Order: sequence, then C-alpha cells, then structure tokens
Amino acid sequence: MQLSNMLRFKMGWAEPAGPSHEVVLSSRVRLARNLSGRPFPGRSTPKATAAVLSEALAAARKAKALAKAASILLEELEETERVFLVERYLISRLLAQATRSRGVVVGEREILSLMINEEDHLRLQGIDSGLCLEKLFDQTDSVDDDLSRSLEFAFHPDWGYLAACPTNAGTGLRASCLVHLPGLGLTGQINRVLDGLSRLGVVVRGLYGEGTKVTGDLYQVSNATALGPAERSLISSVSKVVGTLVQRELEARRSLAEGSHGTRLEDLVYRSLGVLQNARVISYEESMQHLSYIRLALSLGWKIPASLDAVNELTVLARPGHIQMLAGRALDAGERDFLRASLLRKKFS
Amino acid sequence: MQLSNMLRFKMGWAEPAGPSHEVVLSSRVRLARNLSGRPFPGRSTPKATAAVLSEALAAARKAKALAKAASILLEELEETERVFLVERYLISRLLAQATRSRGVVVGEREILSLMINEEDHLRLQGIDSGLCLEKLFDQTDSVDDDLSRSLEFAFHPDWGYLAACPTNAGTGLRASCLVHLPGLGLTGQINRVLDGLSRLGVVVRGLYGEGTKVTGDLYQVSNATALGPAERSLISSVSKVVGTLVQRELEARRSLAEGSHGTRLEDLVYRSLGVLQNARVISYEESMQHLSYIRLALSLGWKIPASLDAVNELTVLARPGHIQMLAGRALDAGERDFLRASLLRKKFS
Repeated sequence: MQLSNMLRFKMGWAEPAGPSHEVVLSSRVRLARNLSGRPFPGRSTPKATAAVLSEALAAARKAKALAKAASILLEELEETERVFLVERYLISRLLAQATRSRGVVVGEREILSLMINEEDHLRLQGIDSGLCLEKLFDQTDSVDDDLSRSLEFAFHPDWGYLAACPTNAGTGLRASCLVHLPGLGLTGQINRVLDGLSRLGVVVRGLYGEGTKVTGDLYQVSNATALGPAERSLISSVSKVVGTLVQRELEARRSLAEGSHGTRLEDLVYRSLGVLQNARVISYEESMQHLSYIRLALSLGWKIPASLDAVNELTVLARPGHIQMLAGRALDAGERDFLRASLLRKKFS
Repeated sequence: MQLSNMLRFKMGWAEPAGPSHEVVLSSRVRLARNLSGRPFPGRSTPKATAAVLSEALAAARKAKALAKAASILLEELEETERVFLVERYLISRLLAQATRSRGVVVGEREILSLMINEEDHLRLQGIDSGLCLEKLFDQTDSVDDDLSRSLEFAFHPDWGYLAACPTNAGTGLRASCLVHLPGLGLTGQINRVLDGLSRLGVVVRGLYGEGTKVTGDLYQVSNATALGPAERSLISSVSKVVGTLVQRELEARRSLAEGSHGTRLEDLVYRSLGVLQNARVISYEESMQHLSYIRLALSLGWKIPASLDAVNELTVLARPGHIQMLAGRALDAGERDFLRASLLRKKFS
C-alpha cells in the first residue's frame, strides 16, 4: 500500500457531522485485548510476536466491519511514513518505534483501526466526528465480537480483560474526546474548568496524548481508569463530562461574540486569517493557534473564506510528518515551516 | 480656514519624488529669527507678543513664496486641530500649548511654513521629499530675504542671528532628514551605525524630535549646533552624513533580499500586509512597524498592493490626531485603534 495515497482521502472524523462537532472535533473509543497464554509483546520472543501478528491479521480479515480494511506492516515503512500514521491517530509513538512484527489494520475512512503488538496484542480503535462515544463503542464492540470468534482473549472472571498495564485491565476501554475550547481560553476560565474535571474521574491531555503540549486550544478528555464500572457506564460518564464542557464552551463563545468583546474577537480572527493567507514561514504551533480562532469564528457562523472540515483536517495536515509526506521526503524544520506556510496560503486563498 | 480640508490634500514631502526618497522620507530646513529690540516670546508681554504676530503676518503676506499661504491663528483652534498641525510637522508641541498671539503660515503643499512666537519670534521651515537640504535652504533663504525687507532681525556681527536658546544662535539653522532604516535594523547593524553618527556632529532622534520614540524604523538626523560654520557648510555636512547612511541602508536591504534571508524578509512583509489588511484594532506603533516592512518591500520593487506615497502619508494619517480629525471629534484610545484599523484596511484592500 502506498501511504501517500491516504493524503487524497479525508479522514472520517474530520467531516464536521457528529453531535456537538462545533466543540468536539472527534470522539475515540479504544479496546485493549490480549491473546490467552501468550506473553505480552514487551516480554515476548520474536517468534511468538510474529505468530500473534499473523493470527491477528487473519482474524481481522474475517471481521465484517474490517472487510475493506488495509493491512500495514510497520517494518515495511520508512520513518517518515510511521510519523505520518502517528499523526493520523492510527498508530501510537510506541508502535512507530518497535517495528518488527508490528502492524496496523485501517478500515474505511480511517474510522476503525486495529494496532497489533503494541503494548497489548490488540488495540482496537474507533474514531469519528463529534460527541459519539456510544456509537463508537457499539462499532468497536461488534468488531471485538467478530475477532473473538477467531481469537481467544485473556480474560479473568474477577479482573476482566487482562492488559500489559494495570490501568487498561478490566474493560480494556479508553473513551476520549478531542475538544476545542478557545472560548474558555479567551474568557480566562480554562484553568478553573480543567481543575474541576480532575475530580470527575477524567484525565485531560494535549493533542497527542500523555505528555504532549496543548496547542490550538485542543484538549483530550478521557477516562482515568478502565477498571471498575461496566463499559457503558464508563462511556456515559465521559460523555456527560464532555457534554458539560460543550455547554460551558458554547456559553463562553456567545459572551465573546457580544458587545465590546466582539471587536476584540473579530480582530483576533481576522489577524489570524491574515497570517494564514500571507505567512511565508510558520511553525505548527503558531498555525494551530490561528486555526483555532478561525474554527471559533466558523462555529459562530461568521462568513470567512474557510470551512470547518478543512480546518479540522489541517490540525493533522499541517503536522511535520504530513508536510514531509506532501514533499515526498524528509525535511528539516526550516523547510517544513516554509512548505506549511505554502499549504496554508493555498487553503485560505 | 477649515483645517479638516487639509486632509484632502497630500503633503508635498509625502510624494516620493526627491533624491534617495527610498531611504530619506523628507528633508527639513529651519531658520530661527527674532525681531530686533523685542523680548523673546517666553519673556514678552501679551501686548508685545501680539505686535510681533501682526508684523510677522504682514511681512509673510509680502513674501513671494508665501503668496498663496494660509494664516492660522492658534487661539482659534480646538485642541484636536492643534494636535493635527503638530503631527503634520507644521507647528511644534510648544506652540500647540501656548496659543495666545501664536500663529503659523502654511504655504502650498505644506512645503514652506512659518511659526510665529514659538521659542523664537519666527521659525521658518521648508520640508520636502528625499535628500534635498540644499534646495530647501535656497527656498527658505529666499523667503528669509523677503521677510528681512519688512522686519529688522536681531543680528550681532560676532554671534550672528540671536536666538532664545544658544544652540540655535549663529546661523539659526537646523537641517534634518527623516530616514527609514529597516535594513540596518533587521541586519542588527543599527546601534553601531547610530553610535558612529554621534561623532560626526549630528544628533539622532525619534519621529517627532527630542524625547520621542523611534517607531517604524524612522530616525531624525540633524545638526547638533547652529553655531560655527556657515549655513552651506552645515547643510553640506548633514547631507554627507545622511548620504552615507543611505548607502549603508541600501547595502543592508540588498543583503536582506538575497538568499535565505529573502524568505525571512518575505515572511515579515507579507505578514505585515496580512495584519494591515485584516486587523480590527491596531495601535499607531504597531501599524508603523508593519508600514516599515511594506515600505522596505516597495523600495525593493516587490509587487504588493501598496504605494510609497500612500505609505509615506500614513506615517502621519495614522497618528491619533489625524484619526480624530477624520472622525471629526476627540476619541479615546480604543476608538482610535478601531478607526485606525478601518483606515488601514481601506488603504490596503
């Protein structure tokens, strides 16, 4: 498979179609599964790891929802291609590093995907637009059923699904949403609101998960542990927290758009547009800040030469690995900043 | 006279017509003169000051080069109008404060002007585009001759023309140039170059003279003292220093436009254009910085939607007093920043 072909197709979640998509860029559900009687990938032998890969790929081919999926073997990829897949949320940085007998199965529109031999033998993911954790759980749950017909999962009657890391044991479920909170940022409420979230059993992180920076007012909200409540109850508690965040953010946006705040916001938005249309050199972080204001304005219904799906997609297209994939080769930071600026000018002309 | 009418006409110096106008926005020559046997304005009685005003106005009417000039009495002006005249370099801040029996005579295209009862009884000024101190000295010298036919100037055979401040005594001459040095700024040479100037008998100041900030990479270079050498020798030494500055600046611009620097410069210029075309709120200082890069690009022959004369004019039109004059009333800083942004968007659309 030629990975650069993926550049020509829109990622499913980028289309602003789901509920509350004006605030929730994407929802993501992930199930961790391990094969019974096999060592976890981190403690496995090359031979055992290879066996898991081939069994998992075979099982995936039989899963209905993955019928048209593409199978990608990590060891066949260049470094730039692995970075590209990380940026598209299809593989983790961990999988990108340990490539031997590692793989990923990518479904249509990149909504469903299955990492093989990451920290756990299987990591099944569903990602889509808006606040749609229930729907994604149904979809991944159905793939999980199909896979379990071919594979025997490590499951303990008391502990539930076993996983390499205890925080993933139990349901093996992580539910997260990528939320855009420029309104709470600009009205100075963001830190107070995020502090409040930690008491509600959720964790807040930057754009690319643990230890990554918050950029472009984008935050990842997910459940803190996979143990304990049943899947639907975990899903529902994350959904509720995110639902409340959506309300708070929309209130903040309304207050920003009104009265004397309005001019300040208009100034921010149009200056951002001016930079996106004119810069000749721009970093990812700076472009994300401008895209954040553009996205905010679009959600308020302002008539500006941009669309929500283009802006959503650019959060990924403007990343270093995607810029390299566009160029067809590895680039230094200066070259990337130059090409990123060209890409943005084209998109906003 | 309706001062707001002046907004409809271009100031003579703003037209980029003079020698080295790509670096030298304007040259200015000023002659200080006092009437014999009268106390200086700062020590005068109201009656004596009024007498000087009326004699000076009568003499100005007879000067050939001021035949079509407008006479403005400061006490008839609003505060906003006095600020407006200061910004157009037609009166000093000192004259704007002490209004009684103070006046200014403004010639065609605002090239020649005569302040009456500032620090000295008469301050005759010539201001025009480019490096043209000699020409301006000829013009003011000729008006000076005409005035001396109606007025008896205080002159001492040893000390020359007397003046309220000793630094102006002797020739009564100040010759200055407003130079645009973004190239020396961007290449990091500016401080070294300016330090060198102080040893050449010139003084460097900000845009509106002593104690004002440097903004938009604009510097005023003038002779340090009026005493000593003859007028033409003073003029020639300032011209020489400025001529050298022009060469250094043009070299810096060329090196900026070349190679990898070129992209950085292009980025600065187009970002500035983006801000000028899009901002909804902007301060004078910020707009001057952007205008500086636009002016630099125009001087390098870049095709951008702007012209040198518009940019020259905006260094004055974007000032607080001019924004107020456009609005027809006094404004607070927030209102001015809003109207300034509208004006700039219109000019760069």
